[in-house]
Amino acid sequence: MRVIVEGKPTEVRAVWFENNRVKMIDQRILPLEFRVLSFCKCSEVAEAIRNMTIRGAPSIGAAAAYGLTLAALSGENLETAANLLRRTRPTANDLFYAIDYMLHAIASGKDPIAAANAYADAIVEKCKRIGKYGSLLIRNNSKVMTHCNAGALASVDVGTALAPLRVAHDEGKNFFVYVSETRPRLQGMRLTSWELLNEGIPHAIIADAASGHYMKKDVDVIIVGADRIASNGDFANKIGTFEKAVLAKELGIPFYVAAPVSTFDFSIESGEEIPIESRSEDEVTEIEGRRIAPIGASALNPAFDVTPNKYVTGFITEIGILKPSEISKLKMKR
Amino acid sequence: MRVIVEGKPTEVRAVWFENNRVKMIDQRILPLEFRVLSFCKCSEVAEAIRNMTIRGAPSIGAAAAYGLTLAALSGENLETAANLLRRTRPTANDLFYAIDYMLHAIASGKDPIAAANAYADAIVEKCKRIGKYGSLLIRNNSKVMTHCNAGALASVDVGTALAPLRVAHDEGKNFFVYVSETRPRLQGMRLTSWELLNEGIPHAIIADAASGHYMKKDVDVIIVGADRIASNGDFANKIGTFEKAVLAKELGIPFYVAAPVSTFDFSIESGEEIPIESRSEDEVTEIEGRRIAPIGASALNPAFDVTPNKYVTGFITEIGILKPSEISKLKMKR
Repeated sequence: MRVIVEGKPTEVRAVWFENNRVKMIDQRILPLEFRVLSFCKCSEVAEAIRNMTIRGAPSIGAAAAYGLTLAALSGENLETAANLLRRTRPTANDLFYAIDYMLHAIASGKDPIAAANAYADAIVEKCKRIGKYGSLLIRNNSKVMTHCNAGALASVDVGTALAPLRVAHDEGKNFFVYVSETRPRLQGMRLTSWELLNEGIPHAIIADAASGHYMKKDVDVIIVGADRIASNGDFANKIGTFEKAVLAKELGIPFYVAAPVSTFDFSIESGEEIPIESRSEDEVTEIEGRRIAPIGASALNPAFDVTPNKYVTGFITEIGILKPSEISKLKMKR
Repeated sequence: MRVIVEGKPTEVRAVWFENNRVKMIDQRILPLEFRVLSFCKCSEVAEAIRNMTIRGAPSIGAAAAYGLTLAALSGENLETAANLLRRTRPTANDLFYAIDYMLHAIASGKDPIAAANAYADAIVEKCKRIGKYGSLLIRNNSKVMTHCNAGALASVDVGTALAPLRVAHDEGKNFFVYVSETRPRLQGMRLTSWELLNEGIPHAIIADAASGHYMKKDVDVIIVGADRIASNGDFANKIGTFEKAVLAKELGIPFYVAAPVSTFDFSIESGEEIPIESRSEDEVTEIEGRRIAPIGASALNPAFDVTPNKYVTGFITEIGILKPSEISKLKMKR
């Protein structure tokens, strides 16, 4: 992704491997600070996933792959390392997919660095293809809405939901993006706005609850990411996605989910089976470390919600745009 | 309303008149600080309305009535004072209703203090009746959702949307309230949670975007306030209300609007005619005075949205619960 650091444009990924270390952008302190962290132990990478230094389903998968690379290089027990990584965050399918991929690659005698790099490169390649298919949905003067950050930060590079925007922008289309801020952690305001600014894509941040107000009159298409998609097309994504999907249906706005096929979990039939992570209530009651809620009040903080398949117009994947009913075919092909 | 100040329960209103001064709770610094401000000029009251020291449609109306009282007592030009007050905030109908009421009362030779007190007392009386009608909608073990603060702070005392909750609680019903935090100004987290804590009503704060997640499985009834209701039942309320109304319809949850009849604006046919206040983008991009958004990013910040009448199950008023189709009868009676 294109990042302007100290006035200079530079190309960087959300996570990569360099000099036997896992490097990643610290996404907790963006956009006001840009810092790259460096880890030499798998347990440090697991902690970085848990504390959301890195987040976004595909980026979490790549970070886990690189974490297992560190474990393999240092001769750690791989099953122990894998289990540590598996316990970091429960919802994203990519985490489990990447761990299985790496364990299989290492067991087959492959070089772990090469295998993890191939995994990360493949994500980026898929994102580029998602961008090409998805850009067909964006026209000149389109008003697009997205939620949370399904950008380059969330998927090693390029992005899932933001990939169509990057491609459409490169193609010279003029369009405008509504970025919902995404409480409680504000990934829309902090990260998506930062990526769009770096690309020069016109946009405005809105409170999450203002989405419906703009959708009523001024949104042509909604594109979001996904953390896990069930066989029937129900999918989990950042809390607030379900609301936008219902509003889109009611208001006749096409609603698309951009995700690589690795996000599909064919082992589950429906969204009912997706585990939803509950995070600390402090993320709601405190902002920037300052208590906002009354002392004694409590909060509930589900990180994701599940959107039923009937609200999805299509899934933008690296193999094309699929209707929810077409996912089962994918399962058979696999 | 019952407020626990320094450990002691005390009864206080959001705004009142005492010793030739307008007193009001400073709602900008709640819940972590409780402070009562005192004003002796109408222009100070206008500024307090504008900067949201006091907010909520009925409380704004009462504050304006007391502001005109100060103007009358000091011999100011009443039309000038009225115009100053009218320019503070555009959406709430009560502001204009209260100003017209006071100008008429003073022109008729009534004592301004008595007239303004009668106006404020009448609001509280109406809220109590709203509470009685609305409590019929709350059963033992009900899960209720509300948005923003339509409580005692917003309506001199008792509340509009919170009145049914206060009455149901006094009647000994056990129920649980989902309080959506209400970005950008967080009136749900700061004010509604504070009122419910003071009353001892069990509740949890949630991010606005988590509303749909809980509505899908765990909400029996939604009660919100209103800033202005058109003749056809379309109504303006805090940004985010429209989303909850659409979700309620889709999920089969009864959706009620609690407001005194003074909130109805029979001079307009539909919600299209309600002016929507746009507030500073800093309310979105900064939290607690600290910049969160990237430098160079901009935000849009509509304070209200309009919900079409088809999403409203009923209006809980001081004269009973009305269906949207019954509002026109009210117009004829008036």
